[in-house]
Amino acid sequence: MKTDVVIVGAGPAGLMLGHLLMQAGIDVVLLERKSADYVLSRIRAGVLEQTTVDVMDQLGLGERMHGEGLAHDGFYLADGDRLIHIDLQGLTGHGVMVYGQTEVTRDLMDAAGSRGLEIVYEAEDVALHDLDSEHPAVTYRAGGETHRLDARFIAGCDGFHGVSRQSVPDAAGKTFERVYPFGWLGILADVPPCNDELIYANHENGFALASMRSRTRSRYYIQVALDDRPENWPEERLWDELDLRLGPEAAARITRGPALEKSIAPLRSFVFEPMRYGSLFLAGDAAHIVPPTGAKGLNLASSDVAYLSRALIAWFKQNDAAGVEAYSSTALARVWKSERFSWTLTNLMHRFPDSGPFGRKMQLAELDYIASSRAAQTTIAENYIGLPL
Amino acid sequence: MKTDVVIVGAGPAGLMLGHLLMQAGIDVVLLERKSADYVLSRIRAGVLEQTTVDVMDQLGLGERMHGEGLAHDGFYLADGDRLIHIDLQGLTGHGVMVYGQTEVTRDLMDAAGSRGLEIVYEAEDVALHDLDSEHPAVTYRAGGETHRLDARFIAGCDGFHGVSRQSVPDAAGKTFERVYPFGWLGILADVPPCNDELIYANHENGFALASMRSRTRSRYYIQVALDDRPENWPEERLWDELDLRLGPEAAARITRGPALEKSIAPLRSFVFEPMRYGSLFLAGDAAHIVPPTGAKGLNLASSDVAYLSRALIAWFKQNDAAGVEAYSSTALARVWKSERFSWTLTNLMHRFPDSGPFGRKMQLAELDYIASSRAAQTTIAENYIGLPL
Repeated sequence: MKTDVVIVGAGPAGLMLGHLLMQAGIDVVLLERKSADYVLSRIRAGVLEQTTVDVMDQLGLGERMHGEGLAHDGFYLADGDRLIHIDLQGLTGHGVMVYGQTEVTRDLMDAAGSRGLEIVYEAEDVALHDLDSEHPAVTYRAGGETHRLDARFIAGCDGFHGVSRQSVPDAAGKTFERVYPFGWLGILADVPPCNDELIYANHENGFALASMRSRTRSRYYIQVALDDRPENWPEERLWDELDLRLGPEAAARITRGPALEKSIAPLRSFVFEPMRYGSLFLAGDAAHIVPPTGAKGLNLASSDVAYLSRALIAWFKQNDAAGVEAYSSTALARVWKSERFSWTLTNLMHRFPDSGPFGRKMQLAELDYIASSRAAQTTIAENYIGLPL
Repeated sequence: MKTDVVIVGAGPAGLMLGHLLMQAGIDVVLLERKSADYVLSRIRAGVLEQTTVDVMDQLGLGERMHGEGLAHDGFYLADGDRLIHIDLQGLTGHGVMVYGQTEVTRDLMDAAGSRGLEIVYEAEDVALHDLDSEHPAVTYRAGGETHRLDARFIAGCDGFHGVSRQSVPDAAGKTFERVYPFGWLGILADVPPCNDELIYANHENGFALASMRSRTRSRYYIQVALDDRPENWPEERLWDELDLRLGPEAAARITRGPALEKSIAPLRSFVFEPMRYGSLFLAGDAAHIVPPTGAKGLNLASSDVAYLSRALIAWFKQNDAAGVEAYSSTALARVWKSERFSWTLTNLMHRFPDSGPFGRKMQLAELDYIASSRAAQTTIAENYIGLPL
């Protein structure tokens, strides 16, 4: 079989790219290792930058997002004593949209059915071939048989553990990585959020985050040691710790409820350069990981996809290779700035075992400075809403 | 002998405080361990915030500073590829004054003679007594005899290695410290500066700074390993390295000349809390050290002295103890913000042996972000010119 672009991975990055290319009349096939239900069951970020909102609107798939999503005009940083408001609208003229990644994925999957976007689920043993040529191919097993897809380009949207990045020869790429000495223990519960806007707290005991997916579903996190386990945190202990770390003002409004999900995720900063190898482009988590602080993961995937779709549409429809040639450097310039922001916010808001009393004082002085400086608040706000494409 | 306030140390902090108190009619005596010539021979920072300029003007001692000092409206950050201008005037409405600490000290010392400010030089074996009482005293040896000065208060302005901070019982204070894994090799030469404004460079080989004391005297620095030695850097090697690290644009304008002075200084962040113990107040380096990046050392001493002089004048002249009671917390709030800024600028501009390729990318991404964001430039500018008292 032959197509224009094979997209490896049908998470939100692959689905957005597939829809954008199909909308422009380019032939695409998506290959997904897991089932549709599995993809939908993954719980991820929930704060959308304008970049991501724009992609959904461009696809005509923003209706439910605008109806059910919560437009947030700001968020809070907490330093144990007080809440510091970051007034996104007042400082930048823009806000963010709280709408779960699961919901974005669902909207994209539903539209795939109705619009005829071809997705092969449970594609096993996916392998990429002839990437350094102009006629690459992908082979995979499905329904007990081996299939082959020939294409002009392959888009690797298959995440950090996917086959796409691993298919680039070692000598052709370079990795940059920072692993953090802690994880996030998350709890999802069908209770109203304690606050209209998100609260990122730096407490003596460690980081905590009060977030939400909707007006009736809350998402909370606390920083825990890397070797900690969810079993060590019976729900009452976890709620007690959230009360403490988020501070009395928030604690008074926390509604406790049974956990729909409780798990520990590690934090990692990771970038692979370049984001192109011959006929293969990498996008989203396949090329880079950010720690969840600041909610940049899905939004970086969206900006990659926005750049890549424009480049590929120009290549196929206007015979213009400039976007394709520039894709890696264009995408990486924005990726590094988001990596910087996520790293900075992670450093500011977490307890680090080795930073000592001076490091702790630097965090408190930074929060104190942020509380007093409109310029400092603006730097946080302009990164949080998303730097321009 | 009896006086109102004994000031231990006659460097710029002690001299400024002495003049301010004497101007208000308070009796003071300064004790200095070294000779006047030795104090004047110490080469230190040369960038004055408005805070410091204001103190000199308030004392009526700003004439030579305004005549010979260089008003700077900005400075540059260099990232190896480009110069990023930080337009202090445009961003904040204020600039800084380039005027050597040695010159500030000389102006204060000259005025001490003409105004009758009492300074005992070469005071040996200085010891502080009864600090936890309302009648503290200082003893010292001079001219072969032991002397005793009784006072109401003692101001410790005797630097990091001075006796004042060491006289506070261990249980009454807490130290916070960060020692950096490198030093600055400085060269002073009577050649015109390569640039109208300072250049702070982050080169692959490490930090470099192009600074000046006047239109005919240049001050350059490079980051070196802690165990490096000035003898390892014959002058031509040092000039070659400066050419490289400051980049071709600056290098083309560097005038080489014989070193008046060449030495290596370590970098340290240090804070002692609180800045008061009973009848003893600490000010300047006696209480805190910043790395020289950002030139905050003398300026923090000036703000300490500004707070402390107001507090003591209110105490002696208006019978108002509020300023004295608040001195430590008021001064420390500003100290911690300057510590934060110096630490941040040091982290941004130096090579750290352990930060690895990801850390290096974070520095370059931060510089790239600063180059593109007025808000980010404003945060740097407002700290560089000095936060308000």
